[in-house]
Amino acid sequence: MTQYNKSNKSRLNRKPGRGNYDEETVNAIIDEALVCHVGFIQEGMPFVIPSNFARMGDKIILHGAKASRLMKQAASGEMICIEMTLLDGLVLARSAFDHSVNYRSVVIFGRGELLTENADKMEALKAVSEHLVKGRWDEIRQPTEQELDATAVVIIPIEEASAKSRTGGVIDEPEDYVLPIWAGILPLKLQALEPISDDRLVEGVTVPSHVTALLKK
Amino acid sequence: MTQYNKSNKSRLNRKPGRGNYDEETVNAIIDEALVCHVGFIQEGMPFVIPSNFARMGDKIILHGAKASRLMKQAASGEMICIEMTLLDGLVLARSAFDHSVNYRSVVIFGRGELLTENADKMEALKAVSEHLVKGRWDEIRQPTEQELDATAVVIIPIEEASAKSRTGGVIDEPEDYVLPIWAGILPLKLQALEPISDDRLVEGVTVPSHVTALLKK
Repeated sequence: MTQYNKSNKSRLNRKPGRGNYDEETVNAIIDEALVCHVGFIQEGMPFVIPSNFARMGDKIILHGAKASRLMKQAASGEMICIEMTLLDGLVLARSAFDHSVNYRSVVIFGRGELLTENADKMEALKAVSEHLVKGRWDEIRQPTEQELDATAVVIIPIEEASAKSRTGGVIDEPEDYVLPIWAGILPLKLQALEPISDDRLVEGVTVPSHVTALLKK
Repeated sequence: MTQYNKSNKSRLNRKPGRGNYDEETVNAIIDEALVCHVGFIQEGMPFVIPSNFARMGDKIILHGAKASRLMKQAASGEMICIEMTLLDGLVLARSAFDHSVNYRSVVIFGRGELLTENADKMEALKAVSEHLVKGRWDEIRQPTEQELDATAVVIIPIEEASAKSRTGGVIDEPEDYVLPIWAGILPLKLQALEPISDDRLVEGVTVPSHVTALLKK
C-alpha cells in the first residue's frame, strides 16, 4: 500500500494504534471533509483559519480572494499545516474518564504554490466545486477570465500526511460494568436537509439530481 | 455589549461585515461546536490538532493525556490559536464564482496554564463533560484521584477572539439571473442519530433523557 511520508511532525507519539499513513485511508478522510483548518505562522504567531478545499491526487487545492490573509500565506511557500476532522459519534462511558469521541482526522504538511495559468486555475476550481457538490460544475456558469484573475488558487503538494481515528464502542474500566449507568455510542452525522430554492429561479427550473443525491447520504 | 479584544491578529481585513467581536455572538458559536482546532508552533513549524474542549466564562478548557503533544504545548504558555467552525449550508449559485458556504466560525488567541489543584481540574472536566452532553456528569462515575493525576487540564484565558459568519441566500451576478440554472441553499446540520446501547448494560438500564434530548436538536 502506498504510504504518505512521515517524520517527527506527523508521527503519532501517543496511541500509535490509532494512526495510519496509507494513502487510501488518508485520502478517504480528506475527500469526505467539507472544510479544512489551515495552520500557518505569521509574525511569529500561530493562526488557524477554516477553508473550503479539494484534493487533486497528492495535492490540496485552496482558493480565495487574492487579498485574503490565508491566500497570501498559503502562496508564500512557507510550511503550512492542513487538518480535517470528521465527527462520527460520542462515546458515552460509565465513567467520566472513559468518555471519548469517535472521529477520523488527517493532518497534512506542505508548502503552497500559486497557480498562474488560467487553464490550471480552471482545473483546480473545478476540483473544488466537484469536491463540494459532485456533478454541479458542468451545469453552472463557469468562471470568466476576469473572475479567474480575481481568484487566487494555491496547490499544496502533500509532503507528509497522517490519519488518526477512533472507532467502535465504549471501553469502561472492568470494575465499572456493574454500575447501573447507561453507556453507549451516540452516532453523529453531518446531514443535508431539504434544499431551499432561490426565489428568483427561471420558471420550470427544479432541484437537479446532483443536489438531491446529497440528501440520500 | 461586551467585546473581546482584537488586534491585527484577530481583526478581519477582508469582508469586515462578516466579522463580530461581541462576547454573546462569539460564545454562542464556541458553545455549539463539539470540536476545536488548536494551532501552535513547535520547532518553527505550524501544527493544527483537533480536540474536545469547553468554555468556562472567558476561558477555554483543553484536557488530555499528560504525555500528548497537544497538552504539553498548550501548557507551555506559548501563544496558541483555537478555531471552531460550524457548517450551516452550501450556497449553490448559478455561477461557479458566486458559490459559497454558510458557516459560523471563531478564532481565539491565548496562552494556556496547567491546572494543578484537583478541585480545579474536577470543575474543568465537569465543564468539558457538560459541553459534550449536558446533564450527564451527575449520572456517571466521576474521576478518581488517580484518574485526575493521569489527566492534564489546561485553561486558556481568551486574550482575543473574533467571529466570522456567512448567512442568507444566493447572491448571483445580476446578468446570471436569466440563466435556467437551479440555485439555492443546501442546509447542513450535524445531527445525532439513534443511540447504540453498550451490550453489557446492567439489566433495566435505559437511554437517559440527557441523551434523548440530543436527538431532538
